[in-house]
Amino acid sequence: MSLVVVGSVAYDGVETPHGKVDRMLGGACTYISLAASYFTQVKIVGIVGDDFAQEDSDLLASREIDLAGLERVPGKTFFWAGVYSQDMNDRTTLTTDLNVFANFDPKLPEHYRNQPYAFLGNIQPALQHSVRRQMNGVRLLGGDTMNFWINDFRAELLETIRHWDFLLINDSEARLLSGVNHLGQAAEKIMAMGPKSLIIKRGEYGAMLFHSQGYFAVPGYLLEQVFDPTGAGDCFAGGFMGYLAGEGVDPGKGPIDAKILGRAVVYGSVMGSFCCERFGVERFRTLTRKEIDRRFEEFRTFTSF
Amino acid sequence: MSLVVVGSVAYDGVETPHGKVDRMLGGACTYISLAASYFTQVKIVGIVGDDFAQEDSDLLASREIDLAGLERVPGKTFFWAGVYSQDMNDRTTLTTDLNVFANFDPKLPEHYRNQPYAFLGNIQPALQHSVRRQMNGVRLLGGDTMNFWINDFRAELLETIRHWDFLLINDSEARLLSGVNHLGQAAEKIMAMGPKSLIIKRGEYGAMLFHSQGYFAVPGYLLEQVFDPTGAGDCFAGGFMGYLAGEGVDPGKGPIDAKILGRAVVYGSVMGSFCCERFGVERFRTLTRKEIDRRFEEFRTFTSF
Repeated sequence: MSLVVVGSVAYDGVETPHGKVDRMLGGACTYISLAASYFTQVKIVGIVGDDFAQEDSDLLASREIDLAGLERVPGKTFFWAGVYSQDMNDRTTLTTDLNVFANFDPKLPEHYRNQPYAFLGNIQPALQHSVRRQMNGVRLLGGDTMNFWINDFRAELLETIRHWDFLLINDSEARLLSGVNHLGQAAEKIMAMGPKSLIIKRGEYGAMLFHSQGYFAVPGYLLEQVFDPTGAGDCFAGGFMGYLAGEGVDPGKGPIDAKILGRAVVYGSVMGSFCCERFGVERFRTLTRKEIDRRFEEFRTFTSF
Repeated sequence: MSLVVVGSVAYDGVETPHGKVDRMLGGACTYISLAASYFTQVKIVGIVGDDFAQEDSDLLASREIDLAGLERVPGKTFFWAGVYSQDMNDRTTLTTDLNVFANFDPKLPEHYRNQPYAFLGNIQPALQHSVRRQMNGVRLLGGDTMNFWINDFRAELLETIRHWDFLLINDSEARLLSGVNHLGQAAEKIMAMGPKSLIIKRGEYGAMLFHSQGYFAVPGYLLEQVFDPTGAGDCFAGGFMGYLAGEGVDPGKGPIDAKILGRAVVYGSVMGSFCCERFGVERFRTLTRKEIDRRFEEFRTFTSF
């Protein structure tokens, strides 16, 4: 009973007001998997070059993440570099070298195909669709997307998200996809496109979840210091889907309890907040489930009235 | 056991994407008082001209607001006009005619002076200070301010807020007053200036309350449609202080329970949300306490996990 995660595995160069790292492990699939691994068994689908370091494989393996679906091919691993603004609300991309990722065509190992949970990280919608088609037994499916696919691959994207249980995007993406400014109305329009629930990530302002019966909202966690927001949205997704998978949620047996969905959003928020505390994936080298649950309880304390 | 409210009583001209009203009852004192009147008895301190309409007095009186401190002098009532941007996150002031408000020098009627609760709306800090000095028995004191006083009347403002239990401002004002960007650190610096608690209003993103033991946060209410955000922050203040006054909170008898403070923030949010549903003060012509409590329970539902 594993969560299959597809997306980019990459090296990142990141500069924030707190420092600069020229090259470190990154990529949506990496962040989602690490975050989800605290809640459920994870199986990766991705592609890396022959420069992918053993210590980076080892980090993933240390979280018991199944790497059978991580294809290794000659060439270089996807490389992205960017610099954050002083307040870290904006970032500028400096380099995007797709490298081996340009020819990514996800093929799932046999033992991935009957898993019940999948999260489709932000890649070409047709590739997301291909992963779903390879998973006959999938019972709960979430995914992410971005402005580029919404603008330039709209038809493919709409065909892909039609079958999803959860779409996780940020507020500007929700407005772009729906064409309306009001988040509640945007959510209605998007859910009419197929996704049963829409989760809107709002950065420091928290997150919202819309479903057929209503909505849930949680404010953001007030971190002492945001070192590096790279990967925070992906860690949110990993915490959210990982928690639901860990709880054995099965919508085939009836609608998912609203309280479970709310808790999944809070666990997503918890994982996103931890991600920001160090550069890249550093925080996951020491993070424990006990710390996660302690922060979950902090959320209860600062939101209860 | 009343809440004394000081601030502007005005006429407003407002244009939003949903319509335009050339002249309607407005002013911080008006909004704060109307919102607070659902929780406690309110006594107004303000000034109006001889153009102040009987029907507007009647509206305030219909909420059992004491108008003994509403001075009437020859001349025109304060007039403000502004236009909101398409998404209503920005507004441009078109007209500010202080009129009789230019010579406002609040003098409290005798029966106001021994009241335990006061809220000092956004006026010149020295005038706020003067009101406090006239209230010997005040036990719980909150107030608002704005960029103009923070920038140009800083010394007076610091002298004034030194004695407050609650300072209610928005996030940009908190950053301006403290000189730091991080809201938690901003709150620490501001509380070191005197106010025991800082409440940060974040518009559609909700509100936060900081106190010596920690913080509380609530997301914003998702309105079907925002007709006119004018007065929403003041209605927040009215709901917040009105609820605390109605509960008979007395910090002289020990620290205020964190849950009570959280509920006050939620009642503030509820009142701010109702305010936006119609132009100006229109919503308060029909609003009932039952509707308020129903929305308070809605907040519980969409924030519980």
